[in-house]
Amino acid sequence: MQKESCDILIIGGGPSGGVCASTAKMNNPEKKIVVIREYEEQLVPCSIPYVFGNTLGSVQNGLAPCGLPANMDIESKVGIVRDIDIKNKIAYYNDIEISFDKLVFATGSIPFVHESLQHSLDLEGVFTIPKNVDLIKKLKNYADTKENIIIVGSGFIGIEIAMEFAGAGKNVTVVGGSEFILNRAFDSDIAQVAQKIVTDAGVTYIGSDRVVEIIDKNSDNIVNGVKLKSGRVVDADVVILATGYKPNTELADRAGISLGRYGGIWVDDYMRTENLNIFAVGDCTARRGFISKAPSKVMLASTSSAEARVAGSSIYGIKYLKGMSGTISIFSTKIGDTVFASAGVTVDKAEVKTNTTMIIGSFKGINRHPAKMPGMREQYVKLIVSRYSGQIVGGQVIGGDEAGEIVNLIGNIIESGKSVYSVMSMQVATQPMLTGAPTNYPLIMAAMMAIKEMES
Amino acid sequence: MQKESCDILIIGGGPSGGVCASTAKMNNPEKKIVVIREYEEQLVPCSIPYVFGNTLGSVQNGLAPCGLPANMDIESKVGIVRDIDIKNKIAYYNDIEISFDKLVFATGSIPFVHESLQHSLDLEGVFTIPKNVDLIKKLKNYADTKENIIIVGSGFIGIEIAMEFAGAGKNVTVVGGSEFILNRAFDSDIAQVAQKIVTDAGVTYIGSDRVVEIIDKNSDNIVNGVKLKSGRVVDADVVILATGYKPNTELADRAGISLGRYGGIWVDDYMRTENLNIFAVGDCTARRGFISKAPSKVMLASTSSAEARVAGSSIYGIKYLKGMSGTISIFSTKIGDTVFASAGVTVDKAEVKTNTTMIIGSFKGINRHPAKMPGMREQYVKLIVSRYSGQIVGGQVIGGDEAGEIVNLIGNIIESGKSVYSVMSMQVATQPMLTGAPTNYPLIMAAMMAIKEMES
Repeated sequence: MQKESCDILIIGGGPSGGVCASTAKMNNPEKKIVVIREYEEQLVPCSIPYVFGNTLGSVQNGLAPCGLPANMDIESKVGIVRDIDIKNKIAYYNDIEISFDKLVFATGSIPFVHESLQHSLDLEGVFTIPKNVDLIKKLKNYADTKENIIIVGSGFIGIEIAMEFAGAGKNVTVVGGSEFILNRAFDSDIAQVAQKIVTDAGVTYIGSDRVVEIIDKNSDNIVNGVKLKSGRVVDADVVILATGYKPNTELADRAGISLGRYGGIWVDDYMRTENLNIFAVGDCTARRGFISKAPSKVMLASTSSAEARVAGSSIYGIKYLKGMSGTISIFSTKIGDTVFASAGVTVDKAEVKTNTTMIIGSFKGINRHPAKMPGMREQYVKLIVSRYSGQIVGGQVIGGDEAGEIVNLIGNIIESGKSVYSVMSMQVATQPMLTGAPTNYPLIMAAMMAIKEMES
Repeated sequence: MQKESCDILIIGGGPSGGVCASTAKMNNPEKKIVVIREYEEQLVPCSIPYVFGNTLGSVQNGLAPCGLPANMDIESKVGIVRDIDIKNKIAYYNDIEISFDKLVFATGSIPFVHESLQHSLDLEGVFTIPKNVDLIKKLKNYADTKENIIIVGSGFIGIEIAMEFAGAGKNVTVVGGSEFILNRAFDSDIAQVAQKIVTDAGVTYIGSDRVVEIIDKNSDNIVNGVKLKSGRVVDADVVILATGYKPNTELADRAGISLGRYGGIWVDDYMRTENLNIFAVGDCTARRGFISKAPSKVMLASTSSAEARVAGSSIYGIKYLKGMSGTISIFSTKIGDTVFASAGVTVDKAEVKTNTTMIIGSFKGINRHPAKMPGMREQYVKLIVSRYSGQIVGGQVIGGDEAGEIVNLIGNIIESGKSVYSVMSMQVATQPMLTGAPTNYPLIMAAMMAIKEMES
């Protein structure tokens, strides 16, 4: 067996693996870093929905620049790591054994499918959404020849795919399993606005029902539709299960690394496992919520990248004292031409999971000023605030494209532990072409409304 | 003489007067608040440039909804305050004397014109840009019938007006007085990019020269052009002096209120003058820089609004301990279809005014991901960082419309005193349609580049 060695071995070449490698190299230029990734080509994970319709138009257009910056002196290899000998610091991939000093798991996530439906995954026309170029191509090629599509799951991926297929003229039904779409990221008042755009675009949404069976009525191994709990049957040529992801930790588990709740690799704030030479970053880790500190199932490439930067700068000793103290669950998406964005807890989550009392401050304004400026549209900001500390723990925005960055401002406010009093006198740039008015900037006004509520 | 009385008297109905009134009312619902404003109708100040060309098309479209929210129980009066008797707490306006308990100056700013040019202000065809509907209408009507326009001054107002007139087919020359346009908000590398868009749009920019005389060659009181320091003469039908503003403090000065450097009303962090019953907010105050703490000439409606919220909640005692500790000088504008935004100090200012050593971290990325996403364009972020504390003290952005809110995120980072280490692992929402990639989000990458520089 061929032998290799390195200082830092990173398993996985997705966003977290790549960012961890480049950050580690920046901090340790003298160390030899090897990244082992599963595929030669890879997709930008969040772009997957857009390959199915007119937005990107092809799988090719969703590909990420392969590998790592050439000038960084990081070795990138394609292979599958079969086993790891933690004690002797050796990993086995392809026909090679590679020794390491530090190890980073960046093995990502794989589609989650409810046990009761797993046996139907082999049917022709049934798909999940793995982060795998070949399988996504297969799904796209298959769906391109069919008319009727059912998507199971009403999270971001499910809804984004539904809108792409609908835009391409398909007959699309989403079976959501919850009254409103996107219910993990948005309160129902916001989700309803998004849902109306989706159904107005021709997508049928079945909320309060769920798939109990995937139907192959001719027993020919070709899917015909789904059966719901209510007994209703919906016909389809294609069934896509967009029912979430689970941490890809089989390898880590086998190597004896401790896992946390929901199956992710347990890590501390600096992304170290219990073994301080072994790190994990990205979707394969056991995350917790920033506010609640409770285990969280949130998976986001942006959070993964932040974790990777923390790990990459902590790998030979903790360099910066700010680690990850939980995910703030920060999302954005565009549905039709309206942007929906959310950071932190939603009202339901705030009440249920952190067991404190929350109040809401909200404001509906506009995203240009004065109202006659071209491109003007409504912008709605809702803040979720701890009644007693005044701290902002969540925010949701409906608006134009600018909402995609406003939510990052809200995220920064949440991460900083800032209160509505601080936001009240926050200095922002306002410009007629670009933002709401200085006098009515919706985020600040929402903070004002929260203050009013707190003091009433 | 008619007599009136109130609890809180606010002089000025612009953004800061209005916001101060509504905030004061929210905090003191039982108090009688009176706002005295000069004009029945008022323009959204930052929208003035857009009334001259195709963007708003008319002065009417730039008007702000007049007065204050009707349901707030605030009295709004039109009048001019002639005198104030501080000792007896009485103000005189129109033919009325009004007594007050608390007084707020929100008297704004008026155009600044260099002494050497003031005698030419009476010439037909010479204009400044006051925040006055009638005078702006007069300028627009006049310019609409003319062809050749000179704008003196290359700040935001000057450049925005130049682009509007150029877009409407006029022959426009800007005499800037500095090598590059917008030189107070941007370093020259950024300003050059903006300048190229301006000159490509057909505007002639004369940088390293300045106006020494406004010409009336026929002595008929009609302007013919300007003479520059170099001796060069530029012909024009219209000369617009966009050479800044100065605090409108003649009334306050006459009443015996102390002024600060540059003529603004001296205020503490809670917007109180030396007399704790008298406040001042907005452009009429003596501002200082957030980083340097040195006197600042920056005037912004957004900063004014923040000040007004602080004053409005401090008027009967300081309610929230976060006051204004200086302006962070946060700007954005759109030139052509490119957005330029800046917060905090520029490199020159950082070096000169705060006398510390600054380093730069910058990154050129894209505002969508992957690159094939529709609407993709470059996004450039430059951060100015204190070498020793790692604190971010300034940031400049070139990008699409999203840059208008990214600068607000940077502003919040500056206001929070955050370091590049903190930004490195900041959690952001990234989405193909809306932002750069999680792995290459330009703001975070710029922070990484600064860290690299700090440690090299």
